[in-house]
Amino acid sequence: MATKEQPKEMTRRQFLTTVGKVGGSVAVFSLMGTMGLLTPETLKAAEYTPPGKNDLHLSGRGGKKIVILGAGMAGLTAAYELGLAGYDCTILEAKSFAGGRNWTIRKGTSVSEIGSGRQTSRFDNGLYFNAGPMRIPQFHVTLDYCKKFGVAIEPFNNVNESGYYYNENVGALSGQRVPKRAAKADVRGYVAEMLAKAVNQNALDLPLTAEEKLKLVDYLKAEGDLNPDLFYKGSERGGYKDEPGSRLDAGVLRDPFDLKAIINSGFGKYFSNEYGYDQQMMMFHPVGGMDAIVKAFEKRVGSRIKYRAEVKEIRQSSSGVRIVYADGHSGRDQEVRGDYCICTIPLTVLKKIPADFSPEMSKAIGSVGYASAGKIGLQFKRRFWEEDEYLYGGSSLTNMDITQIYYPPTDYFGKKGILLGYYAYGGIADKLGGMSYAEREKLALTQGAKIHPQYPKEFEASFSIDWKKTKYQEGGWVSYSANDRKTYYPTLCKPDNRIYLAGEHISYITAWQAGAIESAREVVTDIHQRVMKA
Amino acid sequence: MATKEQPKEMTRRQFLTTVGKVGGSVAVFSLMGTMGLLTPETLKAAEYTPPGKNDLHLSGRGGKKIVILGAGMAGLTAAYELGLAGYDCTILEAKSFAGGRNWTIRKGTSVSEIGSGRQTSRFDNGLYFNAGPMRIPQFHVTLDYCKKFGVAIEPFNNVNESGYYYNENVGALSGQRVPKRAAKADVRGYVAEMLAKAVNQNALDLPLTAEEKLKLVDYLKAEGDLNPDLFYKGSERGGYKDEPGSRLDAGVLRDPFDLKAIINSGFGKYFSNEYGYDQQMMMFHPVGGMDAIVKAFEKRVGSRIKYRAEVKEIRQSSSGVRIVYADGHSGRDQEVRGDYCICTIPLTVLKKIPADFSPEMSKAIGSVGYASAGKIGLQFKRRFWEEDEYLYGGSSLTNMDITQIYYPPTDYFGKKGILLGYYAYGGIADKLGGMSYAEREKLALTQGAKIHPQYPKEFEASFSIDWKKTKYQEGGWVSYSANDRKTYYPTLCKPDNRIYLAGEHISYITAWQAGAIESAREVVTDIHQRVMKA
Repeated sequence: MATKEQPKEMTRRQFLTTVGKVGGSVAVFSLMGTMGLLTPETLKAAEYTPPGKNDLHLSGRGGKKIVILGAGMAGLTAAYELGLAGYDCTILEAKSFAGGRNWTIRKGTSVSEIGSGRQTSRFDNGLYFNAGPMRIPQFHVTLDYCKKFGVAIEPFNNVNESGYYYNENVGALSGQRVPKRAAKADVRGYVAEMLAKAVNQNALDLPLTAEEKLKLVDYLKAEGDLNPDLFYKGSERGGYKDEPGSRLDAGVLRDPFDLKAIINSGFGKYFSNEYGYDQQMMMFHPVGGMDAIVKAFEKRVGSRIKYRAEVKEIRQSSSGVRIVYADGHSGRDQEVRGDYCICTIPLTVLKKIPADFSPEMSKAIGSVGYASAGKIGLQFKRRFWEEDEYLYGGSSLTNMDITQIYYPPTDYFGKKGILLGYYAYGGIADKLGGMSYAEREKLALTQGAKIHPQYPKEFEASFSIDWKKTKYQEGGWVSYSANDRKTYYPTLCKPDNRIYLAGEHISYITAWQAGAIESAREVVTDIHQRVMKA
Repeated sequence: MATKEQPKEMTRRQFLTTVGKVGGSVAVFSLMGTMGLLTPETLKAAEYTPPGKNDLHLSGRGGKKIVILGAGMAGLTAAYELGLAGYDCTILEAKSFAGGRNWTIRKGTSVSEIGSGRQTSRFDNGLYFNAGPMRIPQFHVTLDYCKKFGVAIEPFNNVNESGYYYNENVGALSGQRVPKRAAKADVRGYVAEMLAKAVNQNALDLPLTAEEKLKLVDYLKAEGDLNPDLFYKGSERGGYKDEPGSRLDAGVLRDPFDLKAIINSGFGKYFSNEYGYDQQMMMFHPVGGMDAIVKAFEKRVGSRIKYRAEVKEIRQSSSGVRIVYADGHSGRDQEVRGDYCICTIPLTVLKKIPADFSPEMSKAIGSVGYASAGKIGLQFKRRFWEEDEYLYGGSSLTNMDITQIYYPPTDYFGKKGILLGYYAYGGIADKLGGMSYAEREKLALTQGAKIHPQYPKEFEASFSIDWKKTKYQEGGWVSYSANDRKTYYPTLCKPDNRIYLAGEHISYITAWQAGAIESAREVVTDIHQRVMKA
């Protein structure tokens, strides 16, 4: 068995890398797969083999220059990984800070959205919210970098049964905030009751033996908390009208909602938001803000970044690349040359930059759409969600424009806190994005107060983002149609002579930092193989 | 409206306490309830009105002595709350440390179980596991004390879809570890399919309009991730055979399990473990160990505790109480007198202590049963669950004796870690409790290795607890039958002349620290009212 041959001090990664080098990644897969130790999630991470540290040096190929466009997660990853192997990287970043959409809003953060005035955050010192990515599934490669760089993480409370559902115009439960636990208990209860009775009465033509039907009914009883007669009559899972306590205080269960009311409420359709592979618990985020990851990368590759360097032209020839950029410091156009270019600029921005792309690539870049997304952070004097409602992190969902409220999954027991007052996508995000900063704040406060009457009394300050109107980003994340994936995506994935695209948009993990990181690593591997072959 | 009259700098608790004092707790309830600000969970906390700080002093009733038996959560709470009001409390604690079942096992922790030899923990410095309570629902009063005392908390990962189910002798899926996400996706998918088709074909006699049936089917499609024809054909929710990645790596979904296989697996019955009111997310625990709460109490009332003071007799007369205890320091019996006694000793232990209880109380104390419970902590050289499996906290469930494995919800990315190798109750706990420490370790390792083959290679040290065999505890938690609650419980809740019982067993929040705290607070209120009336 391979385990025997594995030196004791070897880490998993080193081991896999070694096996990978000897036998190729197929060997890694079959070997570890049969050992049964690794999950598909881990195998994904093991696919990447970093360029050998001494490859360039030993083969006399030193001095290779790579120009990286954009200091977001893809650009930072590429510079870091290539740097380890001795490549000479330069990152051009249009903004005065790195991270791209990994952007944490703190005191003094300032932005002028396209077509709007300046907005400067008046949040208190130490408070923040993440305008872009705010959570990381436990199996994403993003956590590998957190671990490697010593970025401390803490759970992101993506599931909290104490959060609320609040819908308008849905019948009897309109305008009523309902704890998630109550809606789930009732919907699961009634639904389990319906099916359990049907199965019990052999009303359905199921390919099950009598014994299997019993097991199914048993499951449904447990799933719905049904009584022995298979009725749902409410459940402690839904919470209490009056909490149980000490001595003779046995508590009083809440009454379940009426079947029709809960079906018409539409709450049930929210449940599955938590079921998605990349939304399931556990999720994490860096302590102190998502940009802790950016800072960790900057510590390692910061000297390679030219800030306020807005790319004006992307040129290439058979011998190299040449990037013209407006230098925000000198106010003059400059250029930088290299052997290869890794371009991580979002396609919405890239399509407007003159570039030596093939017609096919230019067409693809210009054809793909991006999702609208907007968020607002609301600072409150007091963490009333914790103090008044024992609600520690998690979210409330609604069919109002604000769509959802997220409670801070950090700094519990703190004095003040910043709620995510809305997080909207698509058409609603466009509507909110079209408003002034003040109008967005007003809408967030007015609608949010329907769920939390404490809003008006406790509110202090807001900061809102519309990603479509954010310069150098112009979109929340790539949004491929099935046809885009077929027609344009393969072109975007191929190097265009000496230029390689990277970013979440060059992945099947779109809208996630992991997509940016994975795509950067694939490009790094590609370039290195090309260099070593040349 | 009351909000207007509320001075700005008043906290919620102060406000409620004030209103409570003026109008009684009914006033608080109706007032805040109609304001719609507070949840039932918060109202529970608001029920407690601490004794006025100057009540004793102003009424010339100073110098009242309270003898508290046991420095567990109930005893500590009572001493703390009474102390604030000027009562002179003495806590007798049989062990050399406080906390009772709130017990964190660290390097050097040592115990001799009843009838067994000594066991001393060889865990590394800084590593720990909680032998008793390990998680706190977000709405429990326990968190109020954490907040008040500045005890930092972090989430307890009670839900993690990357954990496993592993059952033996359950048909096709026997002996196969299955990620929770996969079992949930399949069971929910098939079940939603069955019901959706039945509803769609009007096979069931449901009290719903056609429009409501459509909504129900819509919900089921979302809940089960059904295709447009209402079939469940697998779902990304269950995870991938091959993870999606960058460029052309779209990933390969796992194949769903066969309907019969997943029904026979019994996995479905595990789902609802997470649905219980007191098991739902979010849950929390103190950073650094559950005993951080104990230490915070000790800081405030530690000078009141006599350690190694084993109660031998509990005496009372019309004028006061007298407690005889064996002083472990001097080796001699001593006594302490007081006006009232709060007895928090578990009934399993109390029933063996000579005491001046009424016959009715003695009978009740001797009649109630306690649950068996046992845990083992396993220290591993390497956090293989994180490194190999991207599994950060949460649990795996099994029908083997070990019942469940919990992964540490703290110190992510650390080098080593302590797993909870089993957590068993009832008959299984008795079986494990009957084993030697070495036999328990062997069983935990052998069975655990079926889920995690890394066990044998990475194991370093264990420490196991059987609560029935733990001196001065002799049980996991009280276990009332319905008849016990009717016949004996009301007696236990009443003061027996000058002696008041407190603890999780004097509550409807049994097995939780909150039960101990709430019952202590009710006793504090009772005694204070009696003193002030006298």
